[in-house]
Amino acid sequence: MTTLKELADLVGGEIVGDPETEISGVSELENAPPGTISFLSFPKYERYLKSTKASAVVMSKGAKLDNKNAAILVKNPTLSFSTILDYFSPAPPRAREVHSTASLGKNVKLGKDVAVGPYTVLEDDVTVADGVVIGPNCAVGRGSSIRSDSELKYHVTLNHNCVIGKNVLVHSGTVIGSDGFGFTAEKGVHYKVPQTGGVVVEDDVEIGANCAIDRGTMGNTVIGKGTKLDNLVHIAHNVKLGKGCLVTGQAGIAGSTVIGDYVAFGGQSGVTDHVEIGSNARIAARAGVTKSIPGDKTYAGMPAKEIRQQNRLDGLFNRLPELVKRINALEQKISELERE
Amino acid sequence: MTTLKELADLVGGEIVGDPETEISGVSELENAPPGTISFLSFPKYERYLKSTKASAVVMSKGAKLDNKNAAILVKNPTLSFSTILDYFSPAPPRAREVHSTASLGKNVKLGKDVAVGPYTVLEDDVTVADGVVIGPNCAVGRGSSIRSDSELKYHVTLNHNCVIGKNVLVHSGTVIGSDGFGFTAEKGVHYKVPQTGGVVVEDDVEIGANCAIDRGTMGNTVIGKGTKLDNLVHIAHNVKLGKGCLVTGQAGIAGSTVIGDYVAFGGQSGVTDHVEIGSNARIAARAGVTKSIPGDKTYAGMPAKEIRQQNRLDGLFNRLPELVKRINALEQKISELERE
Amino acid sequence: MTTLKELADLVGGEIVGDPETEISGVSELENAPPGTISFLSFPKYERYLKSTKASAVVMSKGAKLDNKNAAILVKNPTLSFSTILDYFSPAPPRAREVHSTASLGKNVKLGKDVAVGPYTVLEDDVTVADGVVIGPNCAVGRGSSIRSDSELKYHVTLNHNCVIGKNVLVHSGTVIGSDGFGFTAEKGVHYKVPQTGGVVVEDDVEIGANCAIDRGTMGNTVIGKGTKLDNLVHIAHNVKLGKGCLVTGQAGIAGSTVIGDYVAFGGQSGVTDHVEIGSNARIAARAGVTKSIPGDKTYAGMPAKEIRQQNRLDGLFNRLPELVKRINALEQKISELERE
Repeated sequence: MTTLKELADLVGGEIVGDPETEISGVSELENAPPGTISFLSFPKYERYLKSTKASAVVMSKGAKLDNKNAAILVKNPTLSFSTILDYFSPAPPRAREVHSTASLGKNVKLGKDVAVGPYTVLEDDVTVADGVVIGPNCAVGRGSSIRSDSELKYHVTLNHNCVIGKNVLVHSGTVIGSDGFGFTAEKGVHYKVPQTGGVVVEDDVEIGANCAIDRGTMGNTVIGKGTKLDNLVHIAHNVKLGKGCLVTGQAGIAGSTVIGDYVAFGGQSGVTDHVEIGSNARIAARAGVTKSIPGDKTYAGMPAKEIRQQNRLDGLFNRLPELVKRINALEQKISELERE
Repeated sequence: MTTLKELADLVGGEIVGDPETEISGVSELENAPPGTISFLSFPKYERYLKSTKASAVVMSKGAKLDNKNAAILVKNPTLSFSTILDYFSPAPPRAREVHSTASLGKNVKLGKDVAVGPYTVLEDDVTVADGVVIGPNCAVGRGSSIRSDSELKYHVTLNHNCVIGKNVLVHSGTVIGSDGFGFTAEKGVHYKVPQTGGVVVEDDVEIGANCAIDRGTMGNTVIGKGTKLDNLVHIAHNVKLGKGCLVTGQAGIAGSTVIGDYVAFGGQSGVTDHVEIGSNARIAARAGVTKSIPGDKTYAGMPAKEIRQQNRLDGLFNRLPELVKRINALEQKISELERE
Repeated sequence: MTTLKELADLVGGEIVGDPETEISGVSELENAPPGTISFLSFPKYERYLKSTKASAVVMSKGAKLDNKNAAILVKNPTLSFSTILDYFSPAPPRAREVHSTASLGKNVKLGKDVAVGPYTVLEDDVTVADGVVIGPNCAVGRGSSIRSDSELKYHVTLNHNCVIGKNVLVHSGTVIGSDGFGFTAEKGVHYKVPQTGGVVVEDDVEIGANCAIDRGTMGNTVIGKGTKLDNLVHIAHNVKLGKGCLVTGQAGIAGSTVIGDYVAFGGQSGVTDHVEIGSNARIAARAGVTKSIPGDKTYAGMPAKEIRQQNRLDGLFNRLPELVKRINALEQKISELERE
């Protein structure tokens, strides 16, 4: 139990209503129980402001305030509410110890305040920096290194000679550094092209569950600083993902493709191999990028086009029955005119 | 070795032919060896009835029977044949013991007849009810609970504070309770929105291999009673999946979307975030649902439309070359008429 | 450090330039440091031949040689360069020992020179042939067998009664032999159809990370000799994949579908259930095959058509705005003609 004032101080916000309002937890606006604090981020949810039973709402300084609600006014409601979420539901901390069953190879170097979970395997020459948490049942291949304050959840595979930066979070089941899909055919046999590069995951990256990120054939596959991957994402060999990209669930990026900074990929989108996508491009869900495209624009469809063009074409596609009727009518009229 | 009569008794079916016909195993109709029993479920396979070497066929009471075949006539051939499959190939039972290498945290509660496989990790405050089987190399995070008679196969991850209902089956490599994909940007940095909710998997659910089901941001992601997920399915944070849904391989459902009961998703289909799908809707393979849609209908295409409309448009799309020819011809005729 | 001559001897190639040129490693043509050897495989990279700082290039006997470059001329540059990649960066060998923490069930048979990693579980009646490497944290279900010289990387699940051929490589997180997605509905309840078959992975197959390959309902799911699967691929129950197929990332093949030999699937493509694809067919990225199709052709689009037809239709789709304008103009002219 805390007060509105304490939470407002926590996030540096401006109080509307009684500062002593008691708050016992967080909630979603539309089904909030009394005594909780909720937040308003998208205009489409403003309609819940009147009916919500939340005792207070974190909202934008510019938002239209309903008189009933106590509020904390802030610049970025989602960001401030994230702080409040952490306050009420801190992530369960993991004991900073190397579990007695962890299997450590030769020449493994562990920093301070490191956690290694039960049945986790660190092979020879692995380096783990200060503050790193490696959960249960993980495996780190020989020669790989993990820089400070990063965390691998459960069942994460980091193959040999890969590098994880600082403050990286990798969710369960993800595989980093698997071989790229490289073969060369001769007389009906596919010969494997050795995949001798690695993977570099830069600082502040988060990678979802059950992703697969292949190592480079030569050189590295790179996930740029601050980039976030959702679940079941496929990153092929030698892809370079820039900084601050967002890659939504089940998207896939084929080999050697180079992505700029702050590119956003919708769910189930895909990009072909050996192309470039400019910074700040936005790829809609299910879009399929088949050639290099400039940044700062939004693309949709398969093959992907600028979204305005795709929407226009989709609109005309929906009008095909009408167009056929008009062609029929024209043919009718023409034959009448010809008969005259 | 058993007799047709014994199998007919097992499934409560009506015998056609010699009740003492000996049956040694099961088979597919089209390549059945003599001595086996097969089944006929779909009319398209009736063509194999004459040529099959199966000694007997489980089929519908209404089906056109070929004189050669002995048969067991039942109401639901697939259901009755499932019972016969179980009879001949019972799943290998797992010893109900906690393996000596299982790693149990503090305050773990285990019911009766529980199996915990080697190198499986149950963290603090985990509750496992009677009859639960947890296979090798699984991990269950602190505070999670599994109700009676459920099974986790191999390498399953159940993150902290999640709930698995009764009689649930989770296949290998699946991750439940990973963080939802929630970030808020400020000055070019993506800040993580804490994912403080959980996942509730209700009774009688089956989840395929290498799926990823995210925990809610606040509140729970819910997989409704009797719903079945195929492999590599992505369920984002705060999704509510109703009862009895079928979600085929590589389908994905984005955040906070609410699905009714008995909704069927084809393979590689997808649904955007924050929409609703009515009960008994059917989403075709590869369909992309981009807005809320009512139930009791079938949808296809991207963006998804009612399938009848999509099929009509696809038909017209295929006729585009013809339409262009007709427009060319019209232009030709018009210019002739104008010249007159 | 080696010489151009030694590498030319290794791959049986013809030297251009100084045989004593010293080579210290491999590189990509476009960003090669001096002292390295690179390769030219695709004409589109010929433009880098002039600017590259590589000391030598492995290239085709027919390729246009830039005077500056030393070279090794061969028939298949990718294949020869693969040999050189292996020479400079041999895969780290795994000690051929059964780790003391490996959990072996009853009647497990291990061949010579076998490696079994820490915390790997081999259940009862598993057979592992000579030269097999099973990495850390893997699980092999009862009765399964792995033939000689195959390798499972990390966190691989091989369910019960499955067979892995010779010289097979399975990447991390992949699940083989999970239950197929088979249910039969009665009165609103989905009853499970037991999945009593297995999976047969033939010789020389490679399977990427986090794939899911279901066991057959009856009989086996089969991955044919020399077939290669990329990451996150879904193979449903009773699929028969022929020899020498290539299945790119996130593709999916639905139940009981039969694929010929040397069929290539692009990324995120899909095939419906119970159809056949002829040998040497090529399925473009994102294509969705909805019916049986003959081999020796290339298909694209959803629903998939021969690529020439799909490209023509896509071209006309892009011209829809122009077609509408032409229809508008025709209507205008007709009404003028009618008015006359």
